[in-house]
Amino acid sequence: MNLKTSPLAPVKFPDMHALDGVQMWTAETGAKYKNRPDLWLVKLTQNSRVAAVFTKSNAPGAPVEWSKECLAQGVSGGILVNAGNANVFTGQIGQDDVRDMATFAAEKIGCKAQDIYIASTGVIGEPLILAPIEDGVKGIQLSDENCSWLDAARAISTTDTYAKGASSSCDIDDTTVNICGIAKGSGMIAPDMATMLSFIFTDANISRNVLQTLLSELSDTSFNAITVDSDTSTSDTVMLVATAKASHIEIDDINDPLLDNFKQALGAVMLDLAHQVVKDGEGANKFVEVQVAGAETEQAAKNIAMSIANSPLVKTAIAGEDANWGRIVMAVGKSGEKAERDRLSIYFGQHLVAKNGCRAPDYDEDTLSIYMKNSTLKVAVNVAVGSADFTVWTCDLTHGYIDINADYRS
Amino acid sequence: MNLKTSPLAPVKFPDMHALDGVQMWTAETGAKYKNRPDLWLVKLTQNSRVAAVFTKSNAPGAPVEWSKECLAQGVSGGILVNAGNANVFTGQIGQDDVRDMATFAAEKIGCKAQDIYIASTGVIGEPLILAPIEDGVKGIQLSDENCSWLDAARAISTTDTYAKGASSSCDIDDTTVNICGIAKGSGMIAPDMATMLSFIFTDANISRNVLQTLLSELSDTSFNAITVDSDTSTSDTVMLVATAKASHIEIDDINDPLLDNFKQALGAVMLDLAHQVVKDGEGANKFVEVQVAGAETEQAAKNIAMSIANSPLVKTAIAGEDANWGRIVMAVGKSGEKAERDRLSIYFGQHLVAKNGCRAPDYDEDTLSIYMKNSTLKVAVNVAVGSADFTVWTCDLTHGYIDINADYRS
Repeated sequence: MNLKTSPLAPVKFPDMHALDGVQMWTAETGAKYKNRPDLWLVKLTQNSRVAAVFTKSNAPGAPVEWSKECLAQGVSGGILVNAGNANVFTGQIGQDDVRDMATFAAEKIGCKAQDIYIASTGVIGEPLILAPIEDGVKGIQLSDENCSWLDAARAISTTDTYAKGASSSCDIDDTTVNICGIAKGSGMIAPDMATMLSFIFTDANISRNVLQTLLSELSDTSFNAITVDSDTSTSDTVMLVATAKASHIEIDDINDPLLDNFKQALGAVMLDLAHQVVKDGEGANKFVEVQVAGAETEQAAKNIAMSIANSPLVKTAIAGEDANWGRIVMAVGKSGEKAERDRLSIYFGQHLVAKNGCRAPDYDEDTLSIYMKNSTLKVAVNVAVGSADFTVWTCDLTHGYIDINADYRS
Repeated sequence: MNLKTSPLAPVKFPDMHALDGVQMWTAETGAKYKNRPDLWLVKLTQNSRVAAVFTKSNAPGAPVEWSKECLAQGVSGGILVNAGNANVFTGQIGQDDVRDMATFAAEKIGCKAQDIYIASTGVIGEPLILAPIEDGVKGIQLSDENCSWLDAARAISTTDTYAKGASSSCDIDDTTVNICGIAKGSGMIAPDMATMLSFIFTDANISRNVLQTLLSELSDTSFNAITVDSDTSTSDTVMLVATAKASHIEIDDINDPLLDNFKQALGAVMLDLAHQVVKDGEGANKFVEVQVAGAETEQAAKNIAMSIANSPLVKTAIAGEDANWGRIVMAVGKSGEKAERDRLSIYFGQHLVAKNGCRAPDYDEDTLSIYMKNSTLKVAVNVAVGSADFTVWTCDLTHGYIDINADYRS
């Protein structure tokens, strides 16, 4: 299946420079894809620190289990990612295959297999074909120039319609530090899973604990605040690596004010990548921000926002450019969270469509119809029971989604 | 939009006879639909008992709030249902309109407004136009013959592609009692909501408490075990009425063995109607039973089954006749319930596709491909952590769903 580039794609891949302490290479195994890199090897400088968050699935892939163990041990040798086979639900063979992949990478870059994080994306339920991966890793010449971030983003993608990258820089204690991240998104094609992978690197000198706290916190409002179709991959992985090459003093306190700039810059990179993932949702034509305010708790606000963002009725209405605010009411109602129906208000963009439990007096269908033609939309709901808010992002549900996902696997 | 009859529709509406103690009439208000009844009035014999279950939405429609109060008061004068406008999110006007509807009905059949249950289905967020409903009710001649169950089923429907009815009979203490039910389903069209309504009548002599317990219990495994798109209407209502006209002694103990036959017959009627609702899901081409066994608790089994049945990835794969069992694994994983990945087994029909955490050794793609062409499919999963099971029913997710729901409201 030949997928057209998403109409929501950025104009171009951003300019991103090499990051001190990160060496990386790609290879073409030819196992599933032809004429494109599908293997990405990263060698991390000594003294690097790694943080990661993983899928909450109770049936995670073997690579996720392996990398969770790496994280628990605090290792930071390198990363190997293959695209085309997710090595999920493959039993003991799958576990052996992960270990072998790590061994190939470790032998290449000179560390122990246990020091190599592994991520895999692609078909599930089919055993890996290990030989092309072994050949791919062995064929890498460490003396070769580093691959570009664009190459890396391409190597980890499956059916993504564009490569996803974002970068930023900021000062920590008068030292400029850099942040570079890539992601692959939820472009799914039978039998691929909606595996989301993202790898973010910085040369900042930040302790492992602080790094993990930052990643976990910022994931809640970025990668964990997006949804394409409510489904959760068995392989989702986000890693944040600090090479500590920058010359500032190590930050080992999450409340250190020196961290403020960095936190903001990192948050922006993560949010950018998360938005790029949604904008490449299968068949997506519209990018939708759903803001819920006035909720009892932040979790309640998130549950209501996700109930709206995941509702097939809401998403198809948006695809049809229909300001069907009744379906927003429905989605608030089904969320199970407290909401004051008779004081509820709903905005589409700047247009108030409902307040005090019924349609707004100056509601104008024509104005709304024009607004709904935008490719980026905002739905804001106030449920009038408290002061907590949360924002999530999603896309519309179109024929393209069905085309991509109903396609026979063979 | 002209909807074709669902390919899953029954061959014909069942033969259903009048039920002792229930008088009913339909009217055409012309408010939204032309040349079809859209109003249904029921007069219940004195001494009738009413049980009901309602939507769990926190933003229910005014008619639901009214009828909940009727139920709390234990009244049983009659029922008035209109199709075309759900009277939801209409503020104080909506509440006044419900009271007026009940008043019209009460004046017609000779009881108090508070004795009339109201249900409405159709567009939400727009105030009712009351005059045609008033005219419709006033125009009914009580001396006219009762309408048929088919007429009644048609009168409460919105975009259903076929009328839904089911009946059964059984003996209670050597007296034959009858059960007749109708339903309207989840045929949605912008801006209608997925309102599910069902009204079931019996001449059995059963106390109100027992009736309510039966309805609540049996709803859990019928109307609450179906899903089309995971969305919850603001108006869902299921009512069960016993006219007590049958000559057997009153049953007022839920554990009375005399109730066994009745419970079975009622359960069959409710399940039949629930299945008919799913089979009329928007764009449905396939009817899918999802059985989960080996779960820790029945609720866990239901959560896993619903996670599978609501997954857009699973539903599009089924639409594409793709035995994509990897997506079943994904849906089990995302349910949040305990499952033993490495002992999980999955059947499509009689075909074992996965066991012990990986693809079954004798898995055969061709056999599965043939099986997936059936219009009725069964997916059975054993999660291998306990002994609880639950079964739910759903349909596939097709282009038809998008066509129906992305259509602009005007």
